[in-house]
Amino acid sequence: MPTRRQVLAAVTAMAAAPHRAVARGRPSQGAAGSAGARPGWVAPLEGDISRLVTASMGSTQGWDRLAELCDTFGGRLTGSRNLELAIEWAAETMRRDGLEHVRLQETKAPYWVRGAESLDIMTPVASPLVMLGLGGSVGTPPDGLTAPLMVVRSFDELRTRASEVTGRIVLYDVPFTSYGQTVTYRAAGPSQAARFGALATLVRSVGPMGLRTPHTGALTYQADLPRIPGAAIPVEDANRLARLVARGVPVTLRLRMAAQTLADADSANVIGEITGRERPDEVVLLGGHFDSWDPAGGASDDGVGCIVTWEAARLMKQLALRPRRTVRIVLFTNEENGLRGGLAYRDGFAADAAKHVMALESDIGVFEPMRLGFTGNDRARQMMADVVDLLRPLGFPPLGPGGGGADIGPIAQVGQVPTMALSGDTTQYFQIHHTPADTVERIAPREVAKAAAGIAAVAWAAAEMPEALPR
Amino acid sequence: MPTRRQVLAAVTAMAAAPHRAVARGRPSQGAAGSAGARPGWVAPLEGDISRLVTASMGSTQGWDRLAELCDTFGGRLTGSRNLELAIEWAAETMRRDGLEHVRLQETKAPYWVRGAESLDIMTPVASPLVMLGLGGSVGTPPDGLTAPLMVVRSFDELRTRASEVTGRIVLYDVPFTSYGQTVTYRAAGPSQAARFGALATLVRSVGPMGLRTPHTGALTYQADLPRIPGAAIPVEDANRLARLVARGVPVTLRLRMAAQTLADADSANVIGEITGRERPDEVVLLGGHFDSWDPAGGASDDGVGCIVTWEAARLMKQLALRPRRTVRIVLFTNEENGLRGGLAYRDGFAADAAKHVMALESDIGVFEPMRLGFTGNDRARQMMADVVDLLRPLGFPPLGPGGGGADIGPIAQVGQVPTMALSGDTTQYFQIHHTPADTVERIAPREVAKAAAGIAAVAWAAAEMPEALPR
Repeated sequence: MPTRRQVLAAVTAMAAAPHRAVARGRPSQGAAGSAGARPGWVAPLEGDISRLVTASMGSTQGWDRLAELCDTFGGRLTGSRNLELAIEWAAETMRRDGLEHVRLQETKAPYWVRGAESLDIMTPVASPLVMLGLGGSVGTPPDGLTAPLMVVRSFDELRTRASEVTGRIVLYDVPFTSYGQTVTYRAAGPSQAARFGALATLVRSVGPMGLRTPHTGALTYQADLPRIPGAAIPVEDANRLARLVARGVPVTLRLRMAAQTLADADSANVIGEITGRERPDEVVLLGGHFDSWDPAGGASDDGVGCIVTWEAARLMKQLALRPRRTVRIVLFTNEENGLRGGLAYRDGFAADAAKHVMALESDIGVFEPMRLGFTGNDRARQMMADVVDLLRPLGFPPLGPGGGGADIGPIAQVGQVPTMALSGDTTQYFQIHHTPADTVERIAPREVAKAAAGIAAVAWAAAEMPEALPR
Repeated sequence: MPTRRQVLAAVTAMAAAPHRAVARGRPSQGAAGSAGARPGWVAPLEGDISRLVTASMGSTQGWDRLAELCDTFGGRLTGSRNLELAIEWAAETMRRDGLEHVRLQETKAPYWVRGAESLDIMTPVASPLVMLGLGGSVGTPPDGLTAPLMVVRSFDELRTRASEVTGRIVLYDVPFTSYGQTVTYRAAGPSQAARFGALATLVRSVGPMGLRTPHTGALTYQADLPRIPGAAIPVEDANRLARLVARGVPVTLRLRMAAQTLADADSANVIGEITGRERPDEVVLLGGHFDSWDPAGGASDDGVGCIVTWEAARLMKQLALRPRRTVRIVLFTNEENGLRGGLAYRDGFAADAAKHVMALESDIGVFEPMRLGFTGNDRARQMMADVVDLLRPLGFPPLGPGGGGADIGPIAQVGQVPTMALSGDTTQYFQIHHTPADTVERIAPREVAKAAAGIAAVAWAAAEMPEALPR
């Protein structure tokens, strides 16, 4: 990775480079880091982009703020006092930053509380296991559920052995491949096993093996099936249970969960802006989600996504840069277990959906190697690719596919909005997301600064370019 | 690492090599893996040693047995039913292996129970922390102790700021350097802070940062000072508290621990032997400790030490090898919080202490790179170094210093016994020992087989050599 000195040298050189004529070739195929031939519309932006990048890379403000958020408020599950206080802090801090029109967009949202919980082997020998209840799960009776264990490796095996399921606690011992492939056992597992009479389900954590690290996350009950409790256990605990059963040892477990879903809570998106100087009604939307699961402060999922998008606007304010269009930061609520923040934004801004010229979400961390992705038409993609090429000295690869995010999805769909995403390395991310280990220690200050720099650059370009991104 | 095929080829070649004349040079300075010149007394042992090594490296029995132990019984804290049942299982299994004079050596031992426990930030914003009470700690009142936090980085700082300590919960936020240097804050921290009026102490976990992984372990109260509760918190939680305090945020914590020490429990060492064919009263003592802390099955600390020493005897039995002297396996109880097993062994075998010709303990795991160490006089060291040179094809380095172990220490001291140790890589070991992550997943079957092979080789040599190791 380049040093700060190298980055500063690179961006200074970038700012000083003579502007080139438009080139319709694919700059992303050029030599990495070379100035290359750039289209003419980009040239007038380069100076301000280099100032934003320099300011971000020269500061640890983003990391410091992320640490302050996570240290002070801890886990920020929807409905918790932790999230409520963090929302107040964010709005106050945005105002202190000088962001404009800072406000809360209120919404009702699901309110699930974990309560006390435990999982124990009862036979052959009493021994506690590590576990985390799944978000949205029902609880057990106060004395818990005590039942024999059944281990399956797939839904196919569950169906094949359906006659054995009744009255059992089912463990889905499914090795992690990718999040997309494996998460279905966490989300749909309880209802699928309830169909055959299971009392509860456990899922081998959806992620690589950690250090006895359980991964929580939401389950989704099917409306026509009984609701049974669901919990995640670490890979090691799943292995242990599977080995016992493979040795022919009958295993009885006791699961106790005081989890419950209360009446919907009051929550809110936090919104702050840099109002556009020429077309204030046209909006570049940037954000992450401010809620997190409860076992940790949600540093990567998604405190850092909030902080780095917020930093993009703060840096513009700090440098007294006011773009042609409005840059709007939204810290969405309730992504983890309801998406009510994203839905409330869509509903509240539906009339202006088509005025959103670009929407960017950061919700896959900022672990290196990080990248920017885009979803939209080819001409818009090429324009943003030209901007991302300016970030090569920072180590950004050419613009990839895959814009969007859960929270910006609803408004983007209504407004046919071109979307972007900043994404970190997924291996590191899925190691710790939804676990007690999602802490700020794992994120380098430079990663935060770089992500903020990259977002500031593409946001500035989208907000400042003469004509809005084509859609 | 060599493949199993390479190892078999190497040990076969070793067994077939012509015997060499004695060489008084230092074979350990020769080319690694070369047959070198070996002293004449070693030659008659080489064939049987190669059979032991081949048998061990061709089997996963050690790993399988370790998994069975940890899976079935879980944490084996002294006094627990888990340890009691595991002791019965070990004795039965030794008998099934054909070990001789299998028996329990009973002893009373300290009986500490953890009970429910928790640590919460109360102000600025309520938020749970991860913690593990320290072994031997007193509990808190039922409602817990709620007090302001004070963070110190050393005992010096504690003394300098002694006037601030009264009525506080003190965190020793001391970065991990080595276990030996840092463990004093865990062991002595509570009494040192109690001296100045602290209500309780926390210690930054004595190990490298894991994934929010707390390290428990024993504390030691000073008799003339008040007994206050002590707990360990993960590095991340210590960082969080230290950062809050560094920002000038007053932090109040609530510590709840139902820990208590009950009347001494009945426990036992498990002993099994291969009785010597010529000098049955002369003993090669091999062992590890069978108790563990409660948060995990103690795979590395020290299930594996028990299994690999036990394997050495089992392999001799399997190959119908009966050495000149007795090989005695002892699975010691209560190493973690009392050492009563080692002391009971010393007391029970005091009259025979001088008949112990060598004692070996394995209690630092078997993570590669592993090594064998020796403590004794130069002539004995050279003899065992010559034996260890036979293990170079397996990847063992020349014999190092540092024989001994906590459990064999008492008898070795009484009998002036030459001692050995098998030790694994300490970085990996201290990452997980005393944590919930001390599971069998982290140990490779080949590491278990290799450790057992190495121990079988040196045990065979010490039990079979014509004259006992000089002391």
